[in-house]
Amino acid sequence: MDFDETLARKAADNLKMLRDKKPLIHNITNFVVMNYTANVLLAAGASPVMAHAQEEVEEMAAIAGAVVLNIGTLSHDWIESMIKAGWKANRMNIPIILDPVGSGATTFRTESVRRIINELSISVIRGNASEVLSISRRESGTKGVDSSHTVDDASDAAIALANDLGITVVITGEIDLVTDGNRILRVHNGHSMMGRVTGTGCAATAIIGAFLAVDNDPVTASATALSYYGLSGEIGAEKADGPGSFMIASLDALYNINEAVLRERARIMS
Amino acid sequence: MDFDETLARKAADNLKMLRDKKPLIHNITNFVVMNYTANVLLAAGASPVMAHAQEEVEEMAAIAGAVVLNIGTLSHDWIESMIKAGWKANRMNIPIILDPVGSGATTFRTESVRRIINELSISVIRGNASEVLSISRRESGTKGVDSSHTVDDASDAAIALANDLGITVVITGEIDLVTDGNRILRVHNGHSMMGRVTGTGCAATAIIGAFLAVDNDPVTASATALSYYGLSGEIGAEKADGPGSFMIASLDALYNINEAVLRERARIMS
Amino acid sequence: MDFDETLARKAADNLKMLRDKKPLIHNITNFVVMNYTANVLLAAGASPVMAHAQEEVEEMAAIAGAVVLNIGTLSHDWIESMIKAGWKANRMNIPIILDPVGSGATTFRTESVRRIINELSISVIRGNASEVLSISRRESGTKGVDSSHTVDDASDAAIALANDLGITVVITGEIDLVTDGNRILRVHNGHSMMGRVTGTGCAATAIIGAFLAVDNDPVTASATALSYYGLSGEIGAEKADGPGSFMIASLDALYNINEAVLRERARIMS
Repeated sequence: MDFDETLARKAADNLKMLRDKKPLIHNITNFVVMNYTANVLLAAGASPVMAHAQEEVEEMAAIAGAVVLNIGTLSHDWIESMIKAGWKANRMNIPIILDPVGSGATTFRTESVRRIINELSISVIRGNASEVLSISRRESGTKGVDSSHTVDDASDAAIALANDLGITVVITGEIDLVTDGNRILRVHNGHSMMGRVTGTGCAATAIIGAFLAVDNDPVTASATALSYYGLSGEIGAEKADGPGSFMIASLDALYNINEAVLRERARIMS
Repeated sequence: MDFDETLARKAADNLKMLRDKKPLIHNITNFVVMNYTANVLLAAGASPVMAHAQEEVEEMAAIAGAVVLNIGTLSHDWIESMIKAGWKANRMNIPIILDPVGSGATTFRTESVRRIINELSISVIRGNASEVLSISRRESGTKGVDSSHTVDDASDAAIALANDLGITVVITGEIDLVTDGNRILRVHNGHSMMGRVTGTGCAATAIIGAFLAVDNDPVTASATALSYYGLSGEIGAEKADGPGSFMIASLDALYNINEAVLRERARIMS
Repeated sequence: MDFDETLARKAADNLKMLRDKKPLIHNITNFVVMNYTANVLLAAGASPVMAHAQEEVEEMAAIAGAVVLNIGTLSHDWIESMIKAGWKANRMNIPIILDPVGSGATTFRTESVRRIINELSISVIRGNASEVLSISRRESGTKGVDSSHTVDDASDAAIALANDLGITVVITGEIDLVTDGNRILRVHNGHSMMGRVTGTGCAATAIIGAFLAVDNDPVTASATALSYYGLSGEIGAEKADGPGSFMIASLDALYNINEAVLRERARIMS
């Protein structure tokens, strides 16, 4: 396969900019992955902050380079805080990325995602195939937060959703798909062991958030972020004896991957 | 000592079934251990989901193979959600396991445990000796979530409690005890380093939950689950330089232990 | 440089007392670091408990050796719980340490810190330079929870704040500063990789809390705790390939550092 060299260079450039600017990434995310997400962002070179109180989310969003909304352990109050942070981010043209964890598994999740999409201008939605299908055509039957569908099953839905909403939709899986309804990029980096560590999807979302803070094009920001995060999984898997050591080695890899390595190993197809 | 070979084979069979069925395990658990619990369940082969909002816990419990209730960082609203999820699980004959973290340390914990036990039909309670004593006879003086009593101190109380409630009671410690008031099984797997990693007790509860999803007998489900989880600690300790590397190596072991290894090394006494 | 041998011996003595007494440390802390903080305290030899419900925080604080308040993911209810736990601790002369995470980043954080300081008698405040500056003279412009100021920038403010409030103020950074307004100690232990793992500042606060439970002098308790925690980072860095393995090796080191090693390698200047 022929991977896009221009996009591999773009990945390296985005990583350099991320490390130079160290953007503050404001996460309103779930309890399960907060620690891991913060560590992933720190390893990459960004400055994570987690804050959810309605009293402060506008102020925090206002000083951020990107806002990450993740409904993994949602509740009514937290959704309100997401809306509030999102309004502020929208008014200030700060990009927002949404992770619709478990959309389709319960009515509350599906409706909360719909509300966020309706009330806010989102730059990127990143989910697995089942989650993206649940948003696009009220598909049900998601088994919790796992994907029982493949990326290919959901690619048409992703393109339609991107066109409908005028946003970028990302489906992660064996080969990730990134589309704004017009352009389609596919990212071949990654490793199957990622499915055995909780929060790797959520961390991918956060890393895209960090790249959105340095790259105005949501399509290239998403694809380059996924090539970087996926590569950390490939390198982690080389050193791992199982999911525990994989998680640790991948964090090390996020820190150690430099521009030259990413340019060499990014596998994005246009 | 002579360990029970039939139960060792049962442990291996349960592990195979768990990996074949990948049951969804719905956890309403504490903030401290959410990430570790999810990783333990994923490493074992189950599908964890954490969800606590009253708007969705019934729907989530309804699609689960087992429900895990853990009061480690309890609050009024979370207890309400546990009750709500538990009612749904009871109506659908989905097994529930309760981890009464810190019962006896504060009145709120002891009373919340009592309320959960009164309002729900629980399959298994898993605690340390102090927690089990606090439930059975209003023992006080627990030092937080640590056990200042041995399993032997609490074995009579466990048997009485199991008989009173018609449930299975599990006390974990150096040698774990599993009883439904009639049968008594003892599990000799495990390692002392587990006491130096937070959430190992909570993860043991979650692993029992996963085994309950594939084994209808709470006594054998609990004992075989503990032999598997305890063995992951033994293998982890062989590679560890301290509690950090122990935690990681144990996660790897949970993933790598296969049926043959578990059948060989499970140490359950009947 | 000449380090203080008496304080190095004091560090070793405090570590021994901590392991002998295994004090219960009651944390009302943020979601991001709960797991890591509990693991750090367990590795050191303390007994951590996390509890935030207003129904139980007084009872839990009452049986603790120290109370750790950390506003990292604050909300109105949690601040109320901190006040309630703090009142009880104050009435029982149980030391309180406050970690003003992100003070200065939002009005809600700055005002919550001010309220806690006004309503409670705090033994120690531990923050980075930006956070300490925000408390002492309403400095703004903190970039989230990161320090954009050096310890030297904030040392005068720390001394003034310590004198004003009659407490001990700790600024952590490349060289940590501990002052009660009169005495000034500086701790040279530590490693730059600590900045790449989330919760190392929060864990330093918790370790000081554990030392406060065995050393009545907040100045020596803080400095010796930081020498111990900093040394775990130095040893962790020797074995690390990046921030993931650093975090794990540092947890191992917290467990493995014995009195002799700490006496040998503590680098405190008076």
